Amino acid sequence: MAGLFHRRLRLRTLHAGEERPTPSPTAAPERRPFSRVTPEDMAFFSKIIPGRTITDPDILEASNMDWLKSVRGFSEVLLRPQTTEEVSQILGYCNSRNLAVSPQGGNTGLVGGSVPVYDEIILSTALMNNILNFDSVSGILSCQAGCVLESLSLYLEDKDYIMPLDLGAKGSCHIGGNVATNAGGLRLLRYGSLRGTVLGLEVVLADGRVLDCLATLRKDNTGYDLKQLFIGSEGTLGVITAVTILCPRKPKAVNVAFLGCESFEQLLQTFQLCRGMLGEILSAFEFLDRECMRLLNTHLKLANPITDCPFYIVIETSGSNPTHDEEKLHQFLEEAMTSSQVIDGTVATEEAKIKALWSLRERVTEALTHDGFTYKYDISLPVERIYQLVTDMREHLGDRAKSVVGYGHVGDGNLHLNITSPTKDPNLLASIEPFVYEWTARFQGSISAEHGLGLKKRNYIYYSKASLAVALMGNIKIMLDPKGILNPYKTLPDDLQ
Amino acid sequence: MAGLFHRRLRLRTLHAGEERPTPSPTAAPERRPFSRVTPEDMAFFSKIIPGRTITDPDILEASNMDWLKSVRGFSEVLLRPQTTEEVSQILGYCNSRNLAVSPQGGNTGLVGGSVPVYDEIILSTALMNNILNFDSVSGILSCQAGCVLESLSLYLEDKDYIMPLDLGAKGSCHIGGNVATNAGGLRLLRYGSLRGTVLGLEVVLADGRVLDCLATLRKDNTGYDLKQLFIGSEGTLGVITAVTILCPRKPKAVNVAFLGCESFEQLLQTFQLCRGMLGEILSAFEFLDRECMRLLNTHLKLANPITDCPFYIVIETSGSNPTHDEEKLHQFLEEAMTSSQVIDGTVATEEAKIKALWSLRERVTEALTHDGFTYKYDISLPVERIYQLVTDMREHLGDRAKSVVGYGHVGDGNLHLNITSPTKDPNLLASIEPFVYEWTARFQGSISAEHGLGLKKRNYIYYSKASLAVALMGNIKIMLDPKGILNPYKTLPDDLQ
Repeated sequence: MAGLFHRRLRLRTLHAGEERPTPSPTAAPERRPFSRVTPEDMAFFSKIIPGRTITDPDILEASNMDWLKSVRGFSEVLLRPQTTEEVSQILGYCNSRNLAVSPQGGNTGLVGGSVPVYDEIILSTALMNNILNFDSVSGILSCQAGCVLESLSLYLEDKDYIMPLDLGAKGSCHIGGNVATNAGGLRLLRYGSLRGTVLGLEVVLADGRVLDCLATLRKDNTGYDLKQLFIGSEGTLGVITAVTILCPRKPKAVNVAFLGCESFEQLLQTFQLCRGMLGEILSAFEFLDRECMRLLNTHLKLANPITDCPFYIVIETSGSNPTHDEEKLHQFLEEAMTSSQVIDGTVATEEAKIKALWSLRERVTEALTHDGFTYKYDISLPVERIYQLVTDMREHLGDRAKSVVGYGHVGDGNLHLNITSPTKDPNLLASIEPFVYEWTARFQGSISAEHGLGLKKRNYIYYSKASLAVALMGNIKIMLDPKGILNPYKTLPDDLQ
Repeated sequence: MAGLFHRRLRLRTLHAGEERPTPSPTAAPERRPFSRVTPEDMAFFSKIIPGRTITDPDILEASNMDWLKSVRGFSEVLLRPQTTEEVSQILGYCNSRNLAVSPQGGNTGLVGGSVPVYDEIILSTALMNNILNFDSVSGILSCQAGCVLESLSLYLEDKDYIMPLDLGAKGSCHIGGNVATNAGGLRLLRYGSLRGTVLGLEVVLADGRVLDCLATLRKDNTGYDLKQLFIGSEGTLGVITAVTILCPRKPKAVNVAFLGCESFEQLLQTFQLCRGMLGEILSAFEFLDRECMRLLNTHLKLANPITDCPFYIVIETSGSNPTHDEEKLHQFLEEAMTSSQVIDGTVATEEAKIKALWSLRERVTEALTHDGFTYKYDISLPVERIYQLVTDMREHLGDRAKSVVGYGHVGDGNLHLNITSPTKDPNLLASIEPFVYEWTARFQGSISAEHGLGLKKRNYIYYSKASLAVALMGNIKIMLDPKGILNPYKTLPDDLQ
């Protein structure tokens, strides 16, 4: 008790005259009684990672704010370790001092999971960006957690391999963050989720102990698969410091088709046809609706390469034999056109045109940011239901919303539903939520397919998970991080924080 | 204390005049002080599952003995629930009574994980064999845990889908057991591990609570992925009662090539060539050595379809376009023959011949059982090392072993090393172990790639897992099964039992 009082007292002295930070826009629970960082703490950190303890307000501003500029923390300390040992020492110290820590990768998350809420210390993986090993026989890559996804892709390209995941934020996101959030993205249809491709992890636990599960084996059935706990746990159970991942061979041929459909039903028929005829070379089946195209035209001046349609599809094939792949693609397109499932379309085999077609899908998020304040939902549903939610939401909101758009990963049953308004609008939000979550729960969907829960969605977990499951998550959190110092206020609902 | 004494007393009365069961051949820890089944317990079980509480010694004999006849338990009660609710009531009761339970699927495991060690109650999933749902758009199958793998394959065949896993024991093994042991098998190279294809699980916890994680979604990032804890935990954390699994489309064409190589180096070169040229249609790359062929000839009268060689490869392709697949395969074979990587070979496209070629790989296990007492090792290693272990072991054992053979899944870096002797031979065993484990650990391999740890390998876990990892496994066990009633003496080492 004396210790606690002492810490509070010291904190008051340190922050005398300062205003108490306003809680972040998304209602967060009350600040928990973590210690505040003292000059003695700073001295300790400076000893461990000299020159890499940042207190410059400008740098901190960028690290406190999320990519969407929708949530903001008030951290005054950013730490940039380079090694696992440094992370271990930092966490061991923070745990003993009851200092909260917000781990941060590329800070490209969409649910407020990657920034502090109050004054948590930001622990960045930015300087942990070494490739540790690549085995060109097995395709197994080992690297530190702070490697940028695109850098890894470029590194592998020379070696005739690719990363098993790809996503819009690839230029900034860190592989450690990808794993911590179980990122999905554009290649999941083909190469499966990170739960299958991540072979090993090194994780520093809340108390600083280093958990070495950094296997480089495709198969290992010796006990429980602990690394799975950390995949998708959003930094709340440990800090991932290194990753081993199984990389597929670089395909010898890539083709992209951009097609238009009259209805979502036709789009689904096209998907079925495509899975049958393209089979093992199908590597993406993505869609966007007419509203998305309108935003791409208006805000990014991107032209529609085909006739105006209610729905657009991006199909990618990748395979080992260019002639075979083109033949399969052409047979499929002929069938799709003949049966009138598809109205119009264009195909690309050259890299520049492939990129241009992909950008119509990849830059929807960016176009939305120009349209106004965006309410983002990332929903998993049985594939035949995914667009019904957009239609119902449009009808439900009427002219209260500026735009209601749907796009996403048809192949994975994953809809990105986005709703914009000229400015932030609590009344609009009240019309969207819990409507969207109730709708999703009615069809046994997931209220977060790939974005995670972070700060913003934590309290909606019960729409997708049974109470017993959530209670067990709480037990796991207590087991691995008894003081709750790791990424507080995230993932778990308030009743378990 | 009085309660404990009472239970012991009652037990003595029940078993008066009986011999204390001899511990199973593989040294097990002392019997833990679980209660023994009383007539009152039997009355309770009979009320819950009337007519499905088996005490017939003949039926129990089969359930007490593992498939290899290498370990034997002494259970006197076999329960056959049909529903999750029944499993829940049984476990809730057993937990309150401190009765140990050994969950059992098809009892085809190879590490003594599927049979009791002492007098644990056997809880069989044999009558939980209903298919719950199949969605022919998404390919997602939901079924009870006791469905036999082959029955599921046959069911899906009509619907133009296949199971993502296939293994020698398919005619007997249950899908629940496959998931509980994270079975690998012959299709892992193509469709990945169960960690990616299993989408949902229903699990009854030790205290009878039903954990519903039975999602039918490809993506779901709402909190920690609890189902992963149960995949590969060998029934020690909960009893899997239902599974949802993502099934791939049935390929339109399947081809199998059976090839011979002069050296393991050539075999590896062939693997690399094959991955490049067959790419996405490669669905298996398996091998067996000359010694395996000798056993197939001798004990099963299976003829070698090609010239005698030190190494044999089974390559399977499966794809969506028969013409393209054959073209790819022939181009590859031409290249492999021209460059002398392969000495001789034969190709099959018809089902009967495909089966015949596959049986050369699949029936090695059976041939071994006729050769003598078999010591089985299931090792993961960097692929370039896998045969070196066989060579080193042969040299190490000299003429003390009858046969030392190697076969397995080259594509997954998974060697099955088997050593036979005319009869059980403790001296031979002492020469094999810990040699084999030390060798594996030296090259960062796994001492159990796909078979699990069960009873036989539990104490060797430290060769492949760090102490901290094993300690955390112990914590998870305590969290989910505080009395330790579920499959005791398995998976975790004795110091954590």
